[in-house]
Amino acid sequence: MNNFPRVFLNSKEEKEIQQGFPWAFDNEISHVKHRADEKSEWKNEGLKECTVEDGATVEVYTKAGGFLGTGIINKKSKITVRLIGSEHADVIMADTAAYYEKKILDAYNMRRMFYSDSDSYRLVFGEADFIPGLICERFCDEKGRVIIVAQFLSLSCEVFRNDIVAALKKVCKPDAIYERSDASVRDKEGLPQTAGWIYGSGDTTFTIVENGIKLGVDIANGQKTGYFLDQKFNRTAAAAFCKGKTVLDTFTHTGAFGLNAFKNGAREVTSVDISPEAVDMVNHNIELNGAGKVMKAVCADVFDLLKQYETDGRKFDVIILDPPAFTKSAKMIEKAYGGYKEINLRALRLLNEGGILVTCSCSHFMETNMFCDMLMHAAMDSHKRLQILEKRGAGPDHPVLLGYPKSEYLKCVVCRVL
Amino acid sequence: MNNFPRVFLNSKEEKEIQQGFPWAFDNEISHVKHRADEKSEWKNEGLKECTVEDGATVEVYTKAGGFLGTGIINKKSKITVRLIGSEHADVIMADTAAYYEKKILDAYNMRRMFYSDSDSYRLVFGEADFIPGLICERFCDEKGRVIIVAQFLSLSCEVFRNDIVAALKKVCKPDAIYERSDASVRDKEGLPQTAGWIYGSGDTTFTIVENGIKLGVDIANGQKTGYFLDQKFNRTAAAAFCKGKTVLDTFTHTGAFGLNAFKNGAREVTSVDISPEAVDMVNHNIELNGAGKVMKAVCADVFDLLKQYETDGRKFDVIILDPPAFTKSAKMIEKAYGGYKEINLRALRLLNEGGILVTCSCSHFMETNMFCDMLMHAAMDSHKRLQILEKRGAGPDHPVLLGYPKSEYLKCVVCRVL
Repeated sequence: MNNFPRVFLNSKEEKEIQQGFPWAFDNEISHVKHRADEKSEWKNEGLKECTVEDGATVEVYTKAGGFLGTGIINKKSKITVRLIGSEHADVIMADTAAYYEKKILDAYNMRRMFYSDSDSYRLVFGEADFIPGLICERFCDEKGRVIIVAQFLSLSCEVFRNDIVAALKKVCKPDAIYERSDASVRDKEGLPQTAGWIYGSGDTTFTIVENGIKLGVDIANGQKTGYFLDQKFNRTAAAAFCKGKTVLDTFTHTGAFGLNAFKNGAREVTSVDISPEAVDMVNHNIELNGAGKVMKAVCADVFDLLKQYETDGRKFDVIILDPPAFTKSAKMIEKAYGGYKEINLRALRLLNEGGILVTCSCSHFMETNMFCDMLMHAAMDSHKRLQILEKRGAGPDHPVLLGYPKSEYLKCVVCRVL
Repeated sequence: MNNFPRVFLNSKEEKEIQQGFPWAFDNEISHVKHRADEKSEWKNEGLKECTVEDGATVEVYTKAGGFLGTGIINKKSKITVRLIGSEHADVIMADTAAYYEKKILDAYNMRRMFYSDSDSYRLVFGEADFIPGLICERFCDEKGRVIIVAQFLSLSCEVFRNDIVAALKKVCKPDAIYERSDASVRDKEGLPQTAGWIYGSGDTTFTIVENGIKLGVDIANGQKTGYFLDQKFNRTAAAAFCKGKTVLDTFTHTGAFGLNAFKNGAREVTSVDISPEAVDMVNHNIELNGAGKVMKAVCADVFDLLKQYETDGRKFDVIILDPPAFTKSAKMIEKAYGGYKEINLRALRLLNEGGILVTCSCSHFMETNMFCDMLMHAAMDSHKRLQILEKRGAGPDHPVLLGYPKSEYLKCVVCRVL
């Protein structure tokens, strides 16, 4: 029995948390019980009038009083409690430095099963690594310098910032740590946006090597943390089909899928993005890899370009569709389904017989079965037959936490068109 | 307009077939329309009194008269029509030799994207390769001899036996073809069971090499076609975690998972099977690969052994669960769920912290979401936290046909236990 405040859920709200879901939403909370010290009485308060301070460590209980775990409370957020562990609060808080060092070490050890020191990878994937709200990428530049880019996206990790930074330094021995907490989700947590070096310093643009390909990374201005590491192994898988082939690489962002195809001997690669900045980055990467004779970057709206190619009678052997999330909410899923179906249907029409479609979705709302249903309908409507050769996900540096569907966001389906 | 008999479905039964499902069941069929020749009248008959001969080529139509495809009728089977193509019957039947040569070539070309000439792989996966009922494995023995093992499991491929065998010879140039049509599903098709050489001859036992491991294969007496090729890449994936580790390989059959672990530097491998014949085979394979110092075969019921190990306080770093299908029917799924949960729960208890569970199911009734749900509950009940590092399926030689769920039967989930 300890003095940490206790958050009680409404009845029957415990099931998801028992199954591994690491959040308690405001409307799931019945009341909070707390006391100043051991000599005081426990007070019951509703969430609205609750005087427990945001950022406090709390224990979470079922309506009936069953212990569920320990979390950090933030009344400013709809995600009012993020669970940080299944131990009691006094156990965790007795030595938070050691607690977070163990978590960072667990995360690091897992990555080292798959990645070498010269690789770049996601080191911490928030909830799925049991540190809600914390994202860390470990970049290794071509000179062997290690830069960690960290995002503290919730109060539940912000309050342990010092422990976490100390653990990152001790466990991973980076040359520098750059913070990219300039994400809008921080607003929902009542936290200011911030970015900059928090340990060491250096250039914010550098070159990494992924699958033998050189890629320019801009950790200060790039999307999210500067580069999408989750597709690394899917890029290799796609490239395996590209030897001697004509390849269309859409929504390319950095050109990484296209460059992997080039490296594996593609005859001709067209990488497309709507953003001129992305196309500049693709051209920079084409130059870095001496791919100019085989690969070209096109600045275009993919929807329009696929239509245009159909009109022109263009054909490809391999098409890669790696669109941004067409939906970030469950409500918009129908519209998103239509968007995914349109690009897949049009891509199927542009493929030669026996051609390969590598089709992705990074929206967790478009879950695997729905994505395959969309693909089936796209095949029907384009009068093509599809064999699925492989269903892939994000790399193991983006693990999936059972009971937390959001962690299973990336789908990459490799299929053959007949 | 041709004279092939026409099978009309009941109303609203067309949807699944339109989505790619290649079967029409007896209770989905409204009536059959046929005539002797162009001068005769069309006759309508119910399925029961229908005089169209089993094995005849028929066209399948919706109630409203929409063409769905061409199939082979077999009134002895509940799966009364298996669809062989989306072309009209006269187009297909004009040159069935060329038609099946094209299909075998398509199947062969796809495998050659993933496999070399010295590899063994499934060459034809029935419905998913658009040849319903036909299974062909292409084995290459250690001397480079190519033996195809074929199963004609339905009348729909039996009637094209000559075309198929001719195509296999022409396209794949095997040294011999062995038939393993001694499967009980042939009874349901009204076909006799049969086995033996149908082209060339030779030893029915030989050694193949998979992932650098030597494996004895018995095509005459082994289960199904003699060896399970579908786990090839999952065996490599599992072995990646085994360097220097203690590994428990359950329901091992041939010892293949264990031998891959041995090859990748496992410290100690225990491979378990309940069948003494399987254990003999494992011991034979251990000898073939000189693995005796690291790996041992145990003849035991896996359920009992896992309990025993728990009592004994044994621990492992990596556990592989590759059980046979606990259910072959949708009705038995609840019992099967319990069986899967029991072995997974017990395995989780035997794993060291940070240990790896490679857990499989080869029953398509236990679909991926249900399998992960089972895993979540096994984790809850054993008070362990699980990170899914990879969700895998069968190799690309066992493609998945959209709209035909049976083709997506193998799940292989790699997770880390904390």
